[in-house]
Amino acid sequence: MFRTHTCGELCISHVSQKITLSGWVHIIRKFGAITFVDLRDRYGITQLIFEESFSQAALVDTLGREFVIQISGCVRERSNKNPAIATGEIEILVSQLTILNKAVTPPFTIQDDTDGGDDLRMKYRYLDLRRNQIKKNIELRYAVNRAARNYLHAQQFIDIETPFLIKSTPEGARDFVVPSRMNEGQFYALPQSPQTFKQLLMVSGYDKYFQIVKCFRDEDLRADRQPEFTQIDCEMSFVEQEDILLTFENMLKHILKEVKHIDYLEKVERMSWANAMWSYGNDKPDTRFGAILCNLKYPAHTFPGRPDLSNLISEAAFKVFDEAETVISLSFPGCSEYSRKQTDELTEWVKRPQIGMQGMVFIKMNTDGSIKSSVDKFYSAAQLKAIAEATNAQIGDLILILAGSEERTRKAAAELRLYMADRLGWRKSNEFKLLWITDFPLFEYDAEGNRWVARHHPFTAPKPEHVNTMINHSPKIEDAARYLEHPFASILANAYDMVLNGNEIGGGSIRIFQRTLQEKMFEALGIDKEEQVQKFGFLLGAFEYGAPPHGGIAFGLDRLCAILGGSESIRDFIAFPKNNSGRDVMLDAPSAIENTQLNELNIQLKK
Amino acid sequence: MFRTHTCGELCISHVSQKITLSGWVHIIRKFGAITFVDLRDRYGITQLIFEESFSQAALVDTLGREFVIQISGCVRERSNKNPAIATGEIEILVSQLTILNKAVTPPFTIQDDTDGGDDLRMKYRYLDLRRNQIKKNIELRYAVNRAARNYLHAQQFIDIETPFLIKSTPEGARDFVVPSRMNEGQFYALPQSPQTFKQLLMVSGYDKYFQIVKCFRDEDLRADRQPEFTQIDCEMSFVEQEDILLTFENMLKHILKEVKHIDYLEKVERMSWANAMWSYGNDKPDTRFGAILCNLKYPAHTFPGRPDLSNLISEAAFKVFDEAETVISLSFPGCSEYSRKQTDELTEWVKRPQIGMQGMVFIKMNTDGSIKSSVDKFYSAAQLKAIAEATNAQIGDLILILAGSEERTRKAAAELRLYMADRLGWRKSNEFKLLWITDFPLFEYDAEGNRWVARHHPFTAPKPEHVNTMINHSPKIEDAARYLEHPFASILANAYDMVLNGNEIGGGSIRIFQRTLQEKMFEALGIDKEEQVQKFGFLLGAFEYGAPPHGGIAFGLDRLCAILGGSESIRDFIAFPKNNSGRDVMLDAPSAIENTQLNELNIQLKK
Repeated sequence: MFRTHTCGELCISHVSQKITLSGWVHIIRKFGAITFVDLRDRYGITQLIFEESFSQAALVDTLGREFVIQISGCVRERSNKNPAIATGEIEILVSQLTILNKAVTPPFTIQDDTDGGDDLRMKYRYLDLRRNQIKKNIELRYAVNRAARNYLHAQQFIDIETPFLIKSTPEGARDFVVPSRMNEGQFYALPQSPQTFKQLLMVSGYDKYFQIVKCFRDEDLRADRQPEFTQIDCEMSFVEQEDILLTFENMLKHILKEVKHIDYLEKVERMSWANAMWSYGNDKPDTRFGAILCNLKYPAHTFPGRPDLSNLISEAAFKVFDEAETVISLSFPGCSEYSRKQTDELTEWVKRPQIGMQGMVFIKMNTDGSIKSSVDKFYSAAQLKAIAEATNAQIGDLILILAGSEERTRKAAAELRLYMADRLGWRKSNEFKLLWITDFPLFEYDAEGNRWVARHHPFTAPKPEHVNTMINHSPKIEDAARYLEHPFASILANAYDMVLNGNEIGGGSIRIFQRTLQEKMFEALGIDKEEQVQKFGFLLGAFEYGAPPHGGIAFGLDRLCAILGGSESIRDFIAFPKNNSGRDVMLDAPSAIENTQLNELNIQLKK
Repeated sequence: MFRTHTCGELCISHVSQKITLSGWVHIIRKFGAITFVDLRDRYGITQLIFEESFSQAALVDTLGREFVIQISGCVRERSNKNPAIATGEIEILVSQLTILNKAVTPPFTIQDDTDGGDDLRMKYRYLDLRRNQIKKNIELRYAVNRAARNYLHAQQFIDIETPFLIKSTPEGARDFVVPSRMNEGQFYALPQSPQTFKQLLMVSGYDKYFQIVKCFRDEDLRADRQPEFTQIDCEMSFVEQEDILLTFENMLKHILKEVKHIDYLEKVERMSWANAMWSYGNDKPDTRFGAILCNLKYPAHTFPGRPDLSNLISEAAFKVFDEAETVISLSFPGCSEYSRKQTDELTEWVKRPQIGMQGMVFIKMNTDGSIKSSVDKFYSAAQLKAIAEATNAQIGDLILILAGSEERTRKAAAELRLYMADRLGWRKSNEFKLLWITDFPLFEYDAEGNRWVARHHPFTAPKPEHVNTMINHSPKIEDAARYLEHPFASILANAYDMVLNGNEIGGGSIRIFQRTLQEKMFEALGIDKEEQVQKFGFLLGAFEYGAPPHGGIAFGLDRLCAILGGSESIRDFIAFPKNNSGRDVMLDAPSAIENTQLNELNIQLKK
């Protein structure tokens, strides 16, 4: 037996007991002939003491950091207690030492603040995983996994495994494919999601399905994307949108309670996609704080029926605003006294290529009651005051105004809002705010093909009140310039995203469950009958044998864990992640394979 | 809202309540103007009654089997109760009917005894999954999954996801590979198991790991093999074999309790590999019954130190036995009165090519005290009696004796034992017997290459007492004919299999955790230094930084579920299985892919 206890459990009640521990040498401290060793395992750290009289003194001298040892000894009360650790009241007077395995010096220190760079840490991931912070992340991930499972189990969901070697069903991204040796010239695809399978399980009557499952997308990797990622994938039958929103906001509340010990008692806000774009500039707003966008000017067709404030800026002959498609202002409390240097910094920030603005206008609502602005010479104090009022600004606020083309300016305003919030410390990693975004457009316009593409995926149902619009109109866009006037542009989807602290953590929809409507949808997306049958024949077939109304959602587990762990990076919440080239640098994968294997698979490399 | 209740929950206490249900039309029965409909969902069946006065009578007439409907109505007590179902005391007097989706006639009936053949059932798997038996299997699978998780969680195991896109690490079977678009000419492999990752997690200090995870093997599919399969994969640090056996026999007991409500109180028997081969003829004996093999004759080198009974058969000039390498007898109680027809049947059975015997000898211990045998003319009654005594036969037993070459005869005896047990009803699907097999040989002799191959895998440790044999001898086999005399032939592995009712349901080992011994192991298997570093460099490296002693096990979830479900076939315990050609006939996968995709992946089909 290697141990009677772990390194995390001995306390004052064990004093005088003879015990055996195994673990890693964490720290060695020598005081003359006495040696202290902190022995570490997953569960904690226990202090060992090798006294002068210890019979294997020479062996103690050979110990180094990260050696794996086994000791036996007697638990005794410490004279110098350490309240910071669970075992801080005791130490072990060692009577027997065995070195189970030696260790060479690690290429970086295994500490919270490691000296290992990203590449070194990835190459020696098995050492990086020893670091306390990464260990906490991996444990948090398991806690989230388990909390989700327990919640879903209590709600009568059942975990059903779906296959990994499937058929290529394009969902926007590229599939990873797997050549079949037994079926010459043919390929499996790895699933981008179990979408069609979970829908089939609803047709099969399983009612409530879930799976925590790996999915695969062969995309060019942006920072913080992984070619394989994990979803909490769920589907329910006989539900409307409201049933799903309630079920899954409660799942998130359960996870917050179990993992972060947070009682999330308030109702989760629901916001339409249009309202999110109008008030926050994007569809995943961080609603932990205000600084809501004021739309001083915008193209009429983008937000029909909204107030027109353009007179507030149009009577000053200020060319920048007059020529801009969109002008948006935001107000930040307590920033009115920003120095010239600080406002210059902000201007430089919005002019970065990633943001792409030409410049920025500010209005300072000084605490002395005066108003100062970078456009003083165009706007009177009264005009500035009117803009400030529209922006809901108070004395002490700094108003920032962006102008330019609609899409870019709105995006920039959303980014600027987050950037300022970061600067102002408004985005606390231990404060969590959930939000549902609903009523997405069903289609997106693809300018290149002058056609419609699915905003979510081809299985998402239109809002019931928009079904007839879809059935009764041709998808054909006669005049590309006026695509927004096509009836399809105004069809809303029965879809929803869940947002946590400004990150999309999940998304789903009520699905189409009638063959005719599904065919109409494929047709709208330019998938002809033949292709429909070839790619989705099994699903269209299934819809004929008694398919129930159903809908579902999928959560990105990697991202959810990162946010709950207070981190921006998903990589440290994945035990063995890949780098931005899709490589596992520890394994050195992918790698070349033998020609014999290629031959067996009936493929060859392209010359 | 589609329903206020499910079809499985209404009972006498709901009488007079107004409720709404949704589900499938299971059965329609008409009695004049009154129509009864059994409405089905995952949770049960509820009887609906449409009375003569029902306002939508015409709509009722359009209903067909498997239509999806929603009804509202009032719960009332049945006059004619059905105690067989949970809702049998009530029925619903329907006041409102909505057809949610129509259904065409299914290609086979959705009943316990379906008229659908295997191909049809696989093509319409989403309908097959509606059948009660398959639904029970899928639910059982979830129950096993959950019981395993809960047990492992309570034992402080944590679920850690390991990657699917990895490096090809040959473990005996072929890898499925995935061409990398971003790394030209290179391939990922899909894991045959997370073996090296779980070992790395032990090096990282995670102490107790588990994962219920898909694994992949590109093998020629025998019946009841799947290219993708699921393992309950586990690893522990600071353990000896005994720790693992106890931990996982308790897991199986927990699963039996949770899933089958069986209190498995007895200790799980441990049997050495040599004893299993000696007494049962294979290494996964079904020990629910006796009929233990009696080794009348065997090659001396195969079972050193065992008793020699060959004199019992050698003094009769019976050429068949005299010329045979191995002679094995088995005794079956209550079969002494088998007719000539029955013994002939058995003889034909052992002569089938799959069994490959030349014939069979029997001795009948007749109930009248006489002994009758097919070799009466060679053996005296006293000689036959001596053989019977050695076989532990009683009056009323039928003794069957096989003779031939060692390997084939032993295998045939094991098969015959199971075949007779099946005939005699000894293999009850609701009786469960666990067994550990231990002390496997570390190496197997590969005659083709005149070399050693790993019986389990290259990471399995030899028994501590055999380590020196491995270190101190060259793996080179000088004389192929006498390979059994090579010191490596007698090295035992620190490995174990778990057997349930004659099926191997899990296997594992204590691992090598020292770089030098691992290198020695690779060397024994003919993997040279360069290949070691190229394929397993990360693992060898990890062993240098403080690797703890560790070991683990993996259970085949598909097989375990099939046995617990009382079935021989794993396929009906997998939601979407593949056929024997590795095809998903529902999806029609694998399939051809576009040339553009091949180009992107830098591969082409072989001409």
